[in-house]
Amino acid sequence: MNDNTEATLVRAQDATFDAAAMARRLAEESAPDIADALDALEPEEGAAVLALLPAERAVEVLDQPSLDHGGDMLALLPRERAAPLLAGMSADRAADVLKEMEEEVRADLLGRLDRENRATLDRLLAYPEDTAGSIMTTEFVSVPSNWTIAQVLHHIRIVERTRETVYAVFVTDPVKQTLIHAVPLRRLISGDPHANVLTAVPARRLVSISAQAPREEAIRLIARHDLLAVPVVDARNHLIGIVTVDDVIDAMVERDTEQVQRMGGMAAVEEPYLEAGFWHMIRKRAGWLSILLVGEMITASAMQGFQGELEKAIVLSLFIPLIMSSGGNSGSQAASLLIRELALQQVRIADWWRVARRELPSGVILGSILGVIAFGRIAAWQYFGLYDHGAHWLLIALTVGLALVAIVTFGSMCGSMLPFILQRVGFDPATASAPFVATLVDVTGLVIYFSVALVVLRGTLL
Amino acid sequence: MNDNTEATLVRAQDATFDAAAMARRLAEESAPDIADALDALEPEEGAAVLALLPAERAVEVLDQPSLDHGGDMLALLPRERAAPLLAGMSADRAADVLKEMEEEVRADLLGRLDRENRATLDRLLAYPEDTAGSIMTTEFVSVPSNWTIAQVLHHIRIVERTRETVYAVFVTDPVKQTLIHAVPLRRLISGDPHANVLTAVPARRLVSISAQAPREEAIRLIARHDLLAVPVVDARNHLIGIVTVDDVIDAMVERDTEQVQRMGGMAAVEEPYLEAGFWHMIRKRAGWLSILLVGEMITASAMQGFQGELEKAIVLSLFIPLIMSSGGNSGSQAASLLIRELALQQVRIADWWRVARRELPSGVILGSILGVIAFGRIAAWQYFGLYDHGAHWLLIALTVGLALVAIVTFGSMCGSMLPFILQRVGFDPATASAPFVATLVDVTGLVIYFSVALVVLRGTLL
Repeated sequence: MNDNTEATLVRAQDATFDAAAMARRLAEESAPDIADALDALEPEEGAAVLALLPAERAVEVLDQPSLDHGGDMLALLPRERAAPLLAGMSADRAADVLKEMEEEVRADLLGRLDRENRATLDRLLAYPEDTAGSIMTTEFVSVPSNWTIAQVLHHIRIVERTRETVYAVFVTDPVKQTLIHAVPLRRLISGDPHANVLTAVPARRLVSISAQAPREEAIRLIARHDLLAVPVVDARNHLIGIVTVDDVIDAMVERDTEQVQRMGGMAAVEEPYLEAGFWHMIRKRAGWLSILLVGEMITASAMQGFQGELEKAIVLSLFIPLIMSSGGNSGSQAASLLIRELALQQVRIADWWRVARRELPSGVILGSILGVIAFGRIAAWQYFGLYDHGAHWLLIALTVGLALVAIVTFGSMCGSMLPFILQRVGFDPATASAPFVATLVDVTGLVIYFSVALVVLRGTLL
Repeated sequence: MNDNTEATLVRAQDATFDAAAMARRLAEESAPDIADALDALEPEEGAAVLALLPAERAVEVLDQPSLDHGGDMLALLPRERAAPLLAGMSADRAADVLKEMEEEVRADLLGRLDRENRATLDRLLAYPEDTAGSIMTTEFVSVPSNWTIAQVLHHIRIVERTRETVYAVFVTDPVKQTLIHAVPLRRLISGDPHANVLTAVPARRLVSISAQAPREEAIRLIARHDLLAVPVVDARNHLIGIVTVDDVIDAMVERDTEQVQRMGGMAAVEEPYLEAGFWHMIRKRAGWLSILLVGEMITASAMQGFQGELEKAIVLSLFIPLIMSSGGNSGSQAASLLIRELALQQVRIADWWRVARRELPSGVILGSILGVIAFGRIAAWQYFGLYDHGAHWLLIALTVGLALVAIVTFGSMCGSMLPFILQRVGFDPATASAPFVATLVDVTGLVIYFSVALVVLRGTLL
């Protein structure tokens, strides 16, 4: 630990000229731009530049959610320099940065903070990821409900001077300390200064959330009610923090990126593509690819089972890719629709039956459309002499057409029900990725195809 | 048109009791809840209830972006009732609702508005979809830079009384009318009332956007700089509107839903799954499924070309699904990674070469991992007597292993480059859906597989 710190100091001194020049140059830039510049450096270099920025500016940079290596840089700084920066940061970002650190460094840094700061961060760190508590900040303005508007404005002017953003003022019961309402700043400005603060409360109902509620719920509430911040309360309705709209935007970007990556059939990667380590990315991708390959191996076993039929009617093999991919495609369509609906809570688990009742006829109709196209293709090729499917071409066309109806229906049902099942057993529905659904449907698709062939072609080819 | 209006009125009178009871019951609910309730009704019923709500409340409900049938309901109301509601709505939502209406109804309603309202809406309607202009609102507070803070506060108190949300005050040059800066409300509260408004301007640089800029850019700026609103300016730097954080959240949800649906291989659907019409949904899905089927038909032609090889070595057909799906899976992984990066502008078109240089070795390594697994599987089945691949089983295992290396590499390259190509030619990169990439890779995969087989098995099986 000490070695680490000293190495950084030595390194920082070695590179004094560069780091100092860069710090001078960056001091003029906006905080998000500085964060980007530091991210492009090695963590040691970034830490050296950070150490040379004015403390206030360094805190502002560390507060940027776009800063990827904030934790690394803080950990590389001498502890006595890192602790005050951490104390200056907004509580929610400080907690995020601490989560990235090793246990030991985190404990040391927390130990150097004053008691209040430390207690706040300990509490924030205790909330499981993906809860509203994990993205809330404890910096809010609350006033007792027996204050006048003038008192509230004075409080904002004096006590909250340092705060860059005040989203709303929260009014609490002076005795029970429970949350009563939220007052937007505009209403305080237009209210009568001598009137009680409650006169400025808007007509709409107060919206609040429990710290244990899923992060999704905070996103939904803010989006639905056009809020700038949603108050977070404990079981006794005491205000313990707020989730702000900018945290919600960051959470949405993170959620949707994870969703898209999972849907693409890979583990979620937090870092941007060009910054993520090469081998880190390989690991994230190889796992799922291997699992899918092993799953897909069942198709080889299934084909072994139908080898007799294949040898008798090799023409059947021509349509295997076409049939399998159509099942997979209809499945991934249905899955992507339902994954998104479940994520936005437009469909809930209880709706599975309504969805199934829609997907079944949808699958039959979609399958029939594809079946007719494929039938037409085989007939056309035969008619124009592009390919000779043999004497029983009509039966083969019928086999392919009927198999498509069955497989597309099966694919739609699989793709639409799998997200429900995954959500029910506690997984992210987005794990029902297109590749995963396709693999599932591939094996079944083969069995369906050969079963249809056995029925239609019995006595002729088979 | 008139028929329509009368029919609604008759219907509303027919159902007076129900609609009135529902309106009374809903009057107590929050605007988003009322919007949900109206969406669950037939548009005619919704319009009847809307007509019975107090005008102020009806406007609030129409202002909800979650209201799906706002345009239909307004169009069904008598024009003389609809026009004042439209005039009361926030300009950006009014423009959204007008876009949903038929040309004729829209023109009639616009004609009933006062000149200023009409000019504003005409201007908003002229911005192409997906531009910052199309999601901006024209309701902002701007003051000349020679005002004092007290004057600004007075202005907010009196003139902006009716406005529910004031995000920031924009300061313009009193002569040139150009935008100078934005001042958060909190800074006005803490500033000296007698000082000039410019004393309350924060240190950070002003961020603004052109109305023609892509919607994406507005999302990016708000997310990056943690803004509550970004000012929209014309070519002469005159303030013409603001994009607010709640519009950005709605735009993000819409964008990411479209992205997920496109990735799932279907046309984007705006309505929630359970509310969208059955046939509407079928059309959105059938188009892509049919296109993909036709594309996949090339695989049948490719297999016809290799029929001679297939007949000689039918054992090769066993591994076709496995090989094709692995290529498709690696392709959709790469595509989903890059689609998201391009959407978030973490990767730009100019980066294609850096991405290609990463994907090539990634593909080779991932392909090798899968190749080794597949080789091991064939060897194991042979060794344990689970399946007899024939005398040349080692060569077959080699063929499958090598083909996997080539196909996974090819899939990764295709999947990562296709989003760049689509973006370059002006399509949404998300059109490079998993099914689309998989279909592309399937055909090539077959050719690669049989080519490898021809080289490895020449003189033995082939």
